[in-house]
Amino acid sequence: MRTAIYPGSFDPPTYGHLDIIERAAGQFERLVVAIGVNTSKNPFLPVEDRCSLLTECTGHLANVEVMTFHGLLVDFARSLDCRVLVRGLRAVSDFEYEFRVTMANRRMAPDIETLFLITRDEYSFLASSVVREVSRLGGDPSPFVPPSVAQKIAERLK
Amino acid sequence: MRTAIYPGSFDPPTYGHLDIIERAAGQFERLVVAIGVNTSKNPFLPVEDRCSLLTECTGHLANVEVMTFHGLLVDFARSLDCRVLVRGLRAVSDFEYEFRVTMANRRMAPDIETLFLITRDEYSFLASSVVREVSRLGGDPSPFVPPSVAQKIAERLK
Amino acid sequence: MRTAIYPGSFDPPTYGHLDIIERAAGQFERLVVAIGVNTSKNPFLPVEDRCSLLTECTGHLANVEVMTFHGLLVDFARSLDCRVLVRGLRAVSDFEYEFRVTMANRRMAPDIETLFLITRDEYSFLASSVVREVSRLGGDPSPFVPPSVAQKIAERLK
Amino acid sequence: MRTAIYPGSFDPPTYGHLDIIERAAGQFERLVVAIGVNTSKNPFLPVEDRCSLLTECTGHLANVEVMTFHGLLVDFARSLDCRVLVRGLRAVSDFEYEFRVTMANRRMAPDIETLFLITRDEYSFLASSVVREVSRLGGDPSPFVPPSVAQKIAERLK
Amino acid sequence: MRTAIYPGSFDPPTYGHLDIIERAAGQFERLVVAIGVNTSKNPFLPVEDRCSLLTECTGHLANVEVMTFHGLLVDFARSLDCRVLVRGLRAVSDFEYEFRVTMANRRMAPDIETLFLITRDEYSFLASSVVREVSRLGGDPSPFVPPSVAQKIAERLK
Amino acid sequence: MRTAIYPGSFDPPTYGHLDIIERAAGQFERLVVAIGVNTSKNPFLPVEDRCSLLTECTGHLANVEVMTFHGLLVDFARSLDCRVLVRGLRAVSDFEYEFRVTMANRRMAPDIETLFLITRDEYSFLASSVVREVSRLGGDPSPFVPPSVAQKIAERLK
Repeated sequence: MRTAIYPGSFDPPTYGHLDIIERAAGQFERLVVAIGVNTSKNPFLPVEDRCSLLTECTGHLANVEVMTFHGLLVDFARSLDCRVLVRGLRAVSDFEYEFRVTMANRRMAPDIETLFLITRDEYSFLASSVVREVSRLGGDPSPFVPPSVAQKIAERLK
Repeated sequence: MRTAIYPGSFDPPTYGHLDIIERAAGQFERLVVAIGVNTSKNPFLPVEDRCSLLTECTGHLANVEVMTFHGLLVDFARSLDCRVLVRGLRAVSDFEYEFRVTMANRRMAPDIETLFLITRDEYSFLASSVVREVSRLGGDPSPFVPPSVAQKIAERLK
Repeated sequence: MRTAIYPGSFDPPTYGHLDIIERAAGQFERLVVAIGVNTSKNPFLPVEDRCSLLTECTGHLANVEVMTFHGLLVDFARSLDCRVLVRGLRAVSDFEYEFRVTMANRRMAPDIETLFLITRDEYSFLASSVVREVSRLGGDPSPFVPPSVAQKIAERLK
Repeated sequence: MRTAIYPGSFDPPTYGHLDIIERAAGQFERLVVAIGVNTSKNPFLPVEDRCSLLTECTGHLANVEVMTFHGLLVDFARSLDCRVLVRGLRAVSDFEYEFRVTMANRRMAPDIETLFLITRDEYSFLASSVVREVSRLGGDPSPFVPPSVAQKIAERLK
Repeated sequence: MRTAIYPGSFDPPTYGHLDIIERAAGQFERLVVAIGVNTSKNPFLPVEDRCSLLTECTGHLANVEVMTFHGLLVDFARSLDCRVLVRGLRAVSDFEYEFRVTMANRRMAPDIETLFLITRDEYSFLASSVVREVSRLGGDPSPFVPPSVAQKIAERLK
Repeated sequence: MRTAIYPGSFDPPTYGHLDIIERAAGQFERLVVAIGVNTSKNPFLPVEDRCSLLTECTGHLANVEVMTFHGLLVDFARSLDCRVLVRGLRAVSDFEYEFRVTMANRRMAPDIETLFLITRDEYSFLASSVVREVSRLGGDPSPFVPPSVAQKIAERLK
């Protein structure tokens, strides 16, 4: 069975992430949405929240599974016997970052391939960092994230 | 009366900011230079200093006013009944950042328009972060900022 | 009266151009859409067609006027006693091109200012060259241009 | 059976194209290398040569087929009942071009998805235009193209 | 003796080229300004004019010599026993182009090194193509090129 | 004697840095690899380690010397009576950053020139930050750094 991994920090998940997940789910038999747990960073939403929100928001997609991982992404991919990573591209700066990460991964794991989707134009500006900043400044993140995510952000910022 | 807002953190104000202010002041009946106060950040110059320095440096422009604001820029614009934001563009990375911010603002406030000016070529390299780094390393920021700003930086770093 | 010029070749006019025209018309008392006539180039649509199509498509905007010009844009602006140019930005490559043109114009006419609007995200991919190529390959340009423009393109390619 | 199309002009085919073909062939059950025939352009190598060279160079890949097409790529994809396009990305300027083409295709054919691979670093500089220019200036294109392509170029330039 | 080559088409030479020549002349014992003669292109100024104009404009620099070359730049460099090329960078698009050319040259001639200078900010917008377009549209190229070049352009366009 | 400085933080040194050092050492009589000591930052490897690692890794290059410096780079260059800085360029984002730094240095020290080398394609993705992140996530940095650097990283992370 062909599995692909869509990795990220999803802090918080946005409509842009969900667009990539829906489209990638149509390309692979199984899609694992993989939340990287980097213990040294101070997250906006706890990883448990991100995991349950993503699970809820992808509930209508039968072949999508949400998991967390520690350590290197290529090691996690191998532990699932997966050879395909999926990433979204929005802008030039994304491309440069993804280029560097993909090249580093290829040096460490030449057998793992990365496929890119271009984010739909209406989400091409949308980054988790924008959502965090709008929320912290007292704005309503509803134009950018599903209702359940907006509610969790509101709870967290109280 | 047509008002425009030129927002920023101006930490510190540079000749590049003053170039944009002078040129924008010629395009609008009233220009509000708006210093965003983000309480969570650790500023280089206190917001009071930035406000007084900008007020002093724009004293020769009768239609320019310096203000501070908390929270979302689009909310501040609405509180002034202002529908125009002005921003300067220096480089490709500026463009990508401004594109994201403008799109997010448009999603939250479709009635507010953002107009961009391209920074004059002799200031196209000039960012507040460059001034901060040069100053912290013991360099003289005078080529990049007005004398009053250079003096305030010197006082602060003593 | 404050006049702005929105220059271009508009070969053909697209929904992206019309978005910029509508938004710019809200910022100025009078907006001149100025079609540059470069006699050495081999146009896709004759300049008369572009002029009549733009006039028709902007008929609902009382303060918009369509004109053609020969020679340098800054000379044309001066002949109208206009000191403001408006341009749309879609992407990084646009920015670099516009940066060069704006700097060259500033060297020749320091009193003329250029203001930029960022194209709406749903048109950020849309260039006249895309419309020309799709049309030449037998595709329907209707997703990209108003019906009157699509009809004129169909007539031309017959 | 899941088919993907790798479209291009391949004028001439390079080691960079072959890298993408080999990697894409590992991701899909069937890969169609599709040479776009644009009758208005003056090609470097005739389309028949490009077709036979690509067929020869991909002979070791059982699931790869070389075809030519006229007209719009999305129409060709539909004629094969194919819903996936594959493209290679080398650099920022590639990304911007591909972004525009992908968005235009999506507007015309929302059911067709485009997946991107990042070209291996040793081919990140390599474009057909570089090969054409080196060859025309009397240089040896062997570092950039397979021997059969180099030989065909030599024949053509005689 | 350490020689460097500054190659280009210089059609026409601009103040930007002269800035790079002056600065590069300070870094090497001998600097050869090398005009590439590409017989297939239709030049703006004949190569003889470009050669005499560059010779005149660099007359005050004792270690600068102007030459023309046919064929590949790396072959010309070897014919002079020169191992260093110098190029100017103005903008991101320059960088991408130069990156590709440098990588292709390195593949063909690993012993030849390319060094880059960043063009002074007041010339960062300045390309020969801008000068050609301004001149063809009837504008005065004097802000961009030395008087002798402006005069030659005027003669040519008569 | 012509001296050049190759400045950086080298935290840690990578194969990419060593490629630039080897190539720059071939261009100048003396090359000083200069580690900037910024007391306010929290380094990954202590400056003493970086200094000894670079000294060891460049031991085969007779004209290379490793030094540390505090304060502004241009002041350090003057203290060595050096007028040439060398930097490596990998990607577009590098270019923008280097452009800004070079322009700021030029404003402060017009007599100091910066020369750029383009990093070899196989290292174009390689940044110290990639090495730090891979190492912190438990990965083996050996594909990116010399054995002595990998060993020092392993010791540090224990």
